[in-house]
Amino acid sequence: MVTVALDAMGGDHGVVATAHGVAQLSREDVDVHVFLVGDLAQLGPALDGVAYDPTKITLVHAEGSVAMSDDPREALDRLPRCSILTAAKLVRDGDAKALVSAGHTGATILASARCFERLPGIRRSALAAVYPTEAKHGPRGDPFALMLDVGATLIASEDDLVGFALMGSAYSSVISEIASPRVALLSNGSEPNKGTPAIIEAHRRLKAGPLLFAGNVEGLDIPRGTVDVVVCDGFLGNVVLKMLEGFGEVMNDVARQAAARSLQWRLGLSMLGGGIRELKRMTDWNSYGGAPLLGFDQVVIKAHGRSEARAIRNAVKVAAKAVRGDLIGRIRNGLDQWPNGGLS
Amino acid sequence: MVTVALDAMGGDHGVVATAHGVAQLSREDVDVHVFLVGDLAQLGPALDGVAYDPTKITLVHAEGSVAMSDDPREALDRLPRCSILTAAKLVRDGDAKALVSAGHTGATILASARCFERLPGIRRSALAAVYPTEAKHGPRGDPFALMLDVGATLIASEDDLVGFALMGSAYSSVISEIASPRVALLSNGSEPNKGTPAIIEAHRRLKAGPLLFAGNVEGLDIPRGTVDVVVCDGFLGNVVLKMLEGFGEVMNDVARQAAARSLQWRLGLSMLGGGIRELKRMTDWNSYGGAPLLGFDQVVIKAHGRSEARAIRNAVKVAAKAVRGDLIGRIRNGLDQWPNGGLS
Repeated sequence: MVTVALDAMGGDHGVVATAHGVAQLSREDVDVHVFLVGDLAQLGPALDGVAYDPTKITLVHAEGSVAMSDDPREALDRLPRCSILTAAKLVRDGDAKALVSAGHTGATILASARCFERLPGIRRSALAAVYPTEAKHGPRGDPFALMLDVGATLIASEDDLVGFALMGSAYSSVISEIASPRVALLSNGSEPNKGTPAIIEAHRRLKAGPLLFAGNVEGLDIPRGTVDVVVCDGFLGNVVLKMLEGFGEVMNDVARQAAARSLQWRLGLSMLGGGIRELKRMTDWNSYGGAPLLGFDQVVIKAHGRSEARAIRNAVKVAAKAVRGDLIGRIRNGLDQWPNGGLS
Repeated sequence: MVTVALDAMGGDHGVVATAHGVAQLSREDVDVHVFLVGDLAQLGPALDGVAYDPTKITLVHAEGSVAMSDDPREALDRLPRCSILTAAKLVRDGDAKALVSAGHTGATILASARCFERLPGIRRSALAAVYPTEAKHGPRGDPFALMLDVGATLIASEDDLVGFALMGSAYSSVISEIASPRVALLSNGSEPNKGTPAIIEAHRRLKAGPLLFAGNVEGLDIPRGTVDVVVCDGFLGNVVLKMLEGFGEVMNDVARQAAARSLQWRLGLSMLGGGIRELKRMTDWNSYGGAPLLGFDQVVIKAHGRSEARAIRNAVKVAAKAVRGDLIGRIRNGLDQWPNGGLS
């Protein structure tokens, strides 16, 4: 049985999405226990009339929560018993093995920094995102790859990039079950001398290191999914990730408007069933459980703010899988085996 | 009559694409004269049997050309009479008013730096790319926006970003005929304090400056086309531009594979005629004339390496339009009216 602490207050769809997602998961044949952390006055009603297995859910009261418009530092200082801090403390104290939140990203990172230890050798954390690709990955044929950082560390040094590569490889190995994930740096050309000074130096070290390093990849390779793990700084990763979302939305817009215009289009779209589903799959964020926050000594999964019940369920499942696969142990091993990330 | 010097040797499709593109343009009712610069032994045969107006094309011999695999500096030193340098000198000496090339980007930039003057106040040049968007732009309803830099200046300072904004605004104004183009910085959030230090400082100055500054845009806004001109450093712009290309290719792949699999799909696709055309338009690089290289006292258009005849024709037309609209004069005016880009 894996126990997961979920900030029930976070996310655009609030307690209804989190409570329903956990209720759904509790009815499935999975060995996961969830601490649903939030305002009991809201959590109770959210679960009213919903079928769930009460042996797999424990409600934990918290006072207040961080709003999307809050400054995270100020909010955590003001609300010491808020949902994200209460959930993180359950993990810190060993009552739960993983933290999941669909709330404020900055508050999730800061709560983790306050409650957990940073892994030795890792100076800055990375938020990794799973994103849809044309190519399939690993033995399970996962239709997605991993990118990090996508927003925790705006400007990454060569040390940070090497650390991200190590952590991303371990995560991909645990979640997509790829023995040796192909890892690459995102740059403006495939040659080793392309990119910023930090990228060029990280390239040199990764090439000499123990990971399956595929060199640099370019923008073209992102939708293609040429590699399993794409490494970049948080600024670039954030722009890239939001662009991927934007593409999905634009494609949906174009198809919807065209379908509204004509019967012929609606017929055409229905005939395209499988292919449209394939394109939709490539842009459906609810399928992907969430983004791991890597760099701490505990498993943390940040679900998308827009997560609905299904996405919350998937995020909790991913967190449990990361615990079962000993994600943190694997990252520690990687760091031990390659001290200082090749920095001699 | 506008005269344009075209490096006839550059691009993946070589002299056939450049010669045919120019031949096609010469038969149209446009007042453009082209110096077709390259190896006469190849240019002659390429024009054999092709209908063109000989009063609008002058062949100019050049010795050698820069290969895509060449180091541009070494190649230009080794080949002082090569096609790109010969074409650039025609512009420098006043025989032509604009330079167009589909060849080596680095060589085009370097040849421009050697033959032209940098505009006062501009320290580094920018390659701007026109890219397809969902939203239409300007009075002509152009289905594309402008992004710069996409590869000339890898790391841009705040001064560079402000200069790019000015030049991009002038170009958009001339080519898309938008009186006051909306200009934005690409960042990891819309708030003024989001981004790298260079972006934050450029934001502050642009906000106080004479351009129609829309603040920061995010990755989502790129395919949407929220603004007319997107400003970023060359590293980010390069990754973003190649991602846009990658998306087009992946979409084509998915549709083609599905069509090959089933008759129903082929039928469905044919029923979707207009919408598919819309999606195709959004990813058809041949429609867009090419990328202006901004920062010099002459008009320079870099056509995509993959340009076929139609794209070459469009690139020459865009160059002529930039000359007629006095692009360089407009950029000079902008620089004069806002000395030092707001740096006091």
